[in-house]
Formats: sequence, structure tokens, C-alpha cells
Amino acid sequence: MRSAFYISDGTAITSEVFGHALLSLFPTEFEHHTISFIETTEKALAAKERINKATSRGGKPALVFHTFVNNENREIIESCDAVLYNFLEPFVAPLEKELAIKAKPTTHRTHSIHEKSYDYRIEAVNYALTNDDGSNVTNYEEADVILVGVSRSGKTPSSLYLALQYGIKAANYPFTDDDMEELKIPSFLKPFHKKLFGLTIDAQRLIDIRDGRMANSKYSSARQCRMEVREVEKLYKNEQIPFINTTKLSVEEITAKILTETGLQRYKY
Amino acid sequence: MRSAFYISDGTAITSEVFGHALLSLFPTEFEHHTISFIETTEKALAAKERINKATSRGGKPALVFHTFVNNENREIIESCDAVLYNFLEPFVAPLEKELAIKAKPTTHRTHSIHEKSYDYRIEAVNYALTNDDGSNVTNYEEADVILVGVSRSGKTPSSLYLALQYGIKAANYPFTDDDMEELKIPSFLKPFHKKLFGLTIDAQRLIDIRDGRMANSKYSSARQCRMEVREVEKLYKNEQIPFINTTKLSVEEITAKILTETGLQRYKY
Repeated sequence: MRSAFYISDGTAITSEVFGHALLSLFPTEFEHHTISFIETTEKALAAKERINKATSRGGKPALVFHTFVNNENREIIESCDAVLYNFLEPFVAPLEKELAIKAKPTTHRTHSIHEKSYDYRIEAVNYALTNDDGSNVTNYEEADVILVGVSRSGKTPSSLYLALQYGIKAANYPFTDDDMEELKIPSFLKPFHKKLFGLTIDAQRLIDIRDGRMANSKYSSARQCRMEVREVEKLYKNEQIPFINTTKLSVEEITAKILTETGLQRYKY
Repeated sequence: MRSAFYISDGTAITSEVFGHALLSLFPTEFEHHTISFIETTEKALAAKERINKATSRGGKPALVFHTFVNNENREIIESCDAVLYNFLEPFVAPLEKELAIKAKPTTHRTHSIHEKSYDYRIEAVNYALTNDDGSNVTNYEEADVILVGVSRSGKTPSSLYLALQYGIKAANYPFTDDDMEELKIPSFLKPFHKKLFGLTIDAQRLIDIRDGRMANSKYSSARQCRMEVREVEKLYKNEQIPFINTTKLSVEEITAKILTETGLQRYKY
């Protein structure tokens, strides 16, 4: 199998995203390796050794995705027995011309601390944790968005992702069996109607997920899951709460759709 | 100010990472906009209108970062009054040649659900939540890593990030004032010594953070913060627990360093 390396003198997150996006266009398998924080000659030489070994082992040159712009370690990496792809390079000169500014390559800028957005994110994570799963219903004033939905429809991971990635304060509140007889927006959520965003999920997927947690229970029964999904969707429609179906969506897609539909501003860029 | 647009028929996360990495090389400010899920002609035309307005408003052509490969909406976007940057394009033909395979562009592949890694991540988030802050000390068998450190040194956001991004099960355990008189590894953590990873932080930064939460308390006093930091660092050294100082690091950098130092495998690629 062909090896793919994502390498950088920083976190290598940019190289990973770049490499994955490109390789995902090709219907074949790769062996993935990330090497972060190549900041010294020693580390660059160690990386070179790993890459060269992968090439010998695989019989075909490893693919190396990197973002070194001007760096003495770049030469070491470029001397590897591998095919190199640097996604910044083709764009730097055209952008310099367009902006009429010279690029100033500084390592660690993309995924390092930018004071303001950092504090936002930590605060948002704390907010998501203390306002998870209806555990605190007195602090919705502070929320940017309040996710609602039945148990296991994706509320908690989505709230945390909104906080960690975007610094958005997302509370979440679950509709449970007790609410179902006459499902309505609870009184403490009413003043925040405009912040509500609904998640729903296909009943069959919900049955499967709940069955994995509590097999043969009322909670995971087909009858219960179908009823809960039907009731919340009715509520969303009657109360004009925007909602999405999370069945086929990743956390990244759920949160990107929430941002698109609500127009919420991300604090981190 | 020049406008920068990150657009895609998917989440636009790849466009954002690509655009930010490039623009971070230039010492100037931009107005950032993300437009996700451009899946229809209507949405492409609406995006075009927003982009053209930004160009008129700013007096200079907006910068548009996108990853459309083969797509009918691409033509609409390419007809905008803007400068376009497509980071996949320069690399597709060389990679096709190297791999001797034709690229098969499929939208939504990079940040959509890959069944296996999706379940890992949700499970890991649940694990991080139930094993946060020492709230459960009976389930460390299942942990991939156990973060330790004083209160407010970055354990919780790092655990959640490891779970959400990489599907890694990270528990975390806080050393508090009660532990300080004779700081040692608690008995329930001893069997998992090899999973321990320490976080530390500069005392002054710790004072500032704690002061923001509980001003004028023993918890946030200079004396207390200095003592706690000194004691945990002594423990890490005596017990040979690998550790990093999080003071100047973002969550992305902390977790990338943890992966590098522990050699932990990420479940998501």
C-alpha cells in the first residue's frame, strides 16, 4: 500500500486537511502518517528516515504533503525518496501580486493561539459542558444557540464541536419520554424560542443507536423511537423551529448546517 | 478591507483551512465569510451575488477560496467579480499521473461520515464526558490516555478535542489542593502509569485564569498557583510522566504534541 505523510513544523493539521482532500478524490487506499513539529535538523532527518523506509517498504515512492514555505528543514524533506506536494507554493506568488504585499512566512500561525479567539473557545466549552443535556435551565440568556432533540440525535457532540471549533456557546436540551404525552416548548425555553434549533434522526438509526446502549428496553424499542421522532418533528413544524435530520451527517456537517441556517457568527477564524 | 470567501458544496472546512493557511502568510486583515453547501444553481447564484457585492463594497476584488473540482456550479462561481483560488486543481493531474488512477471527484467526502471513524468519535466523546475531571475513577482500563494536571491547565478542552477530532478516549484527572501536601500518583491511577500524560502551565498565566473565575480566593492566589505548579512538575519528573507546558499553546497544538509524544494512533483519517 502506498504511504502518505502529512508533515509540518507546526501541528500538521493543515497538511492533513490538504492531503486528505486530495487523496479522497482517488478510489484507492493509503497508509497514513502524520509527523508534527519538525522544528530541528534532528527531527527533519528522523522524518526523512521514516519516509525513506516507507518508500523502500512499499516499493513505490511515498507521498509527502507539507506546507514548509521558507525553512532550512525544507531542503532535508525535499531530499527524501518521495513525491512532494506543497500546497502553499503555487498560490503564494499570485497572492503576493494580487495583494501587493510580500508574504511573511511564520511557522505555527494557522493553528496556534490567537488570544481573543482562544478565550472565546475555552469559555464556550465550559458553557457547553454546564448546559449539556438540560442539566441547567437557568442560563439560556448566554446561549448563542440551544439545540433540542430526542436522546441520541447528536446534540452533545454538536454542542461541543460548535464550542471547540467556533467559540459558539451552544446549550442543549433533550425531549424525553416524560415530555411526549403533550409535547410542547418548556416554559423556561419559551423566552428563547429564536435560539432553538432542532435535530431529528431517522427512527431506524435511532433504534440501532439506542439498542447499542440499552438493548431490549422501552427506550430502544421501535415503537418508542418512532413515536418520539414523530412527536418532535411535529413540534418543530408547528412551532417553526428550524431543524435538520442528522442521520447521514457527520458532526462537521451538522454544525456547518447549523451555522448556515442560523447565520451565527463564528468567533474563530 | 479585502473580503475573503471560503466556499464549497460541502462543509467548506477544507476551503477554510486552505484559505486561512495562505492568508496567514500576509501581514494584513481580511473580512472572512464562509458559504457552505452550495449544492444548487440557486445557491450558487446567491453566493455569486454576495461575492460581487463584497467586491463593489471593498473596491477591490474579493478573494474566493474553493475546492470545486468538476461541478456545474463551478462555472457560476468562476464568473464572479473576484480572484479565485482552487487548491485542488494544481495537484490533481500530477497525482493522477503518479498513482496511475483517474480522480473521481465526489462531493462531501472529506468531512462526511465514514461509518467506522464516526462511531469511534461519538464513543470517545461519551468516554471523555463521563471520565472528565476525575468524576469516575473506575474506568481507566478503557482510556487511550489519561491527562493529569492542576485545575485550569487545559485538561478538559484537550480531552474533548482528542475525542472529537481523533476518536481517542482521553480521561482526565485533576490534582487539587487536597493532594498537594504529599503529592503522589493516586492508587487508582497507578496501574495505568503508562497512560498518564501531564499538563503544566506558567504560574502567572494560571493566576490570571483562576482570577477570572474566582478573584481574591486562595484558589487564585499567587502563592497557591506557584505551589501547585511546582508540586506537579516535581511529580512528573520524579515519576517520569511525560508532560508539556500549555501556556502558549492552542488546543490544536496541545493535542498534536500529545499525539507526537505518546505515539497514539488517531482513529480518524
